[in-house]
Amino acid sequence: MIKKVTIIGSGNIATQIGISLKQSNVIIKQIISRNKHTGQTLAHMLNCTYSSQLSLIQPTDLMIICTNDDSIEQISQNTPDYPTVHTSGNTSIEALKNKRKFGVIYPVQSLQKEDNINFLYIPICIEASSMVFKKEITQLIKKISKAIFYLNSNERQYIHLSAVIACNFTNHLYSIAKELLDEKKLDFNILKPLIISTANKIKTHNPITNQTGPAKRKDITTIKEHLELIDNKEYKKIYKLISNNIIEKHGKSL
Amino acid sequence: MIKKVTIIGSGNIATQIGISLKQSNVIIKQIISRNKHTGQTLAHMLNCTYSSQLSLIQPTDLMIICTNDDSIEQISQNTPDYPTVHTSGNTSIEALKNKRKFGVIYPVQSLQKEDNINFLYIPICIEASSMVFKKEITQLIKKISKAIFYLNSNERQYIHLSAVIACNFTNHLYSIAKELLDEKKLDFNILKPLIISTANKIKTHNPITNQTGPAKRKDITTIKEHLELIDNKEYKKIYKLISNNIIEKHGKSL
Repeated sequence: MIKKVTIIGSGNIATQIGISLKQSNVIIKQIISRNKHTGQTLAHMLNCTYSSQLSLIQPTDLMIICTNDDSIEQISQNTPDYPTVHTSGNTSIEALKNKRKFGVIYPVQSLQKEDNINFLYIPICIEASSMVFKKEITQLIKKISKAIFYLNSNERQYIHLSAVIACNFTNHLYSIAKELLDEKKLDFNILKPLIISTANKIKTHNPITNQTGPAKRKDITTIKEHLELIDNKEYKKIYKLISNNIIEKHGKSL
Repeated sequence: MIKKVTIIGSGNIATQIGISLKQSNVIIKQIISRNKHTGQTLAHMLNCTYSSQLSLIQPTDLMIICTNDDSIEQISQNTPDYPTVHTSGNTSIEALKNKRKFGVIYPVQSLQKEDNINFLYIPICIEASSMVFKKEITQLIKKISKAIFYLNSNERQYIHLSAVIACNFTNHLYSIAKELLDEKKLDFNILKPLIISTANKIKTHNPITNQTGPAKRKDITTIKEHLELIDNKEYKKIYKLISNNIIEKHGKSL
């Protein structure tokens, strides 16, 4: 049973997982981070010791690597052989294969330090090097989330890809919309209820049945008028490409 | 003061506005719709008479044209000179200029008939041919919404354009994400909390500060890996174009 964990990293995920585990009475033994300032702050918050050196890791039940994707493999190779997981959507479990027990716990959320996160309904994707270790990680993660999914590294990559499309890209579209309104001194608040209700509809409906708008209706007049309103060449391209894709997709289904 | 209104059309907006006005004790005098089935259903629901003929419109304080954009002008030209508004985001107030009193009430929502809508917080954009008529429409619309905005036809077009980008296009991205997961037999539910929280963040933050993901981090390795996972050529193009636009936009701000 995993009782004591060590967190490597002191960024958004390290902070949120650390707080969440501590609140579930898991002992956070040590924070390891190159960034002294954020590392010490997090260690203080979690009431544990801090070190900047991987070589100073003390015996632990689990190391959770919460760093950038690029450094996961290297950290794994420079740490003692304690059971280890990383938290990356896009990094294979194989990055940790120098350990005897290794795995992944990937929270499907865009975590920011200052968010007041309750992990309870945040999906966490688990992968492990063995059935025994999978059970151990599951026991631990069950303490903080009710939404556990078992996915292999390839499946996890598709979740990450889809999250980028459905969340990072949509947020960029919100930015573009706000910019177009700002330029005309129009209030972005006018759009907010529609943005929220568009997202909420996926809770109960397949998004393909929720599609509305000029492209769905093949309303070429409106599409042309909209394109004339957009000055930015890249935004014009994005408007055209997505509209054409909606026309094509919904045309086929007619 | 507007006491009795006539609704032309029996689609989503006609239904929602009709129900909402009736609940606020406005008298719905008549439903006019070419579609006998939906027209009679709505008239029954609103306890008023139905006709399929524009020529049979009875005297009224306000005609609300809730039809397709294309038919608004023609309907205006074929109806008696009662005060008239349309409900379209993308149609100029000029489409109704044959009337003495004319205007626009544009609810910024994607309304579907079966939705249980409370207009109270739905932004409604108002435009009117005169100050007097603007006051009259405002008095009416205040009964159903607390979020009234006064916009001219050009401004309303930008709201509509931005709504298409921030809502219709984001919904299409949800569809693409779901399709990619479906192909791998992965559960779209895993993404839902992240989609909802991404949308909710705009309530309190400027979307540009909420941007996360590989393109924001200029993580070219992940972007290339994602592109390899996508088979559909159009989806590949969308992924590339939006990622490049995020890189460009956030690169400039560094």
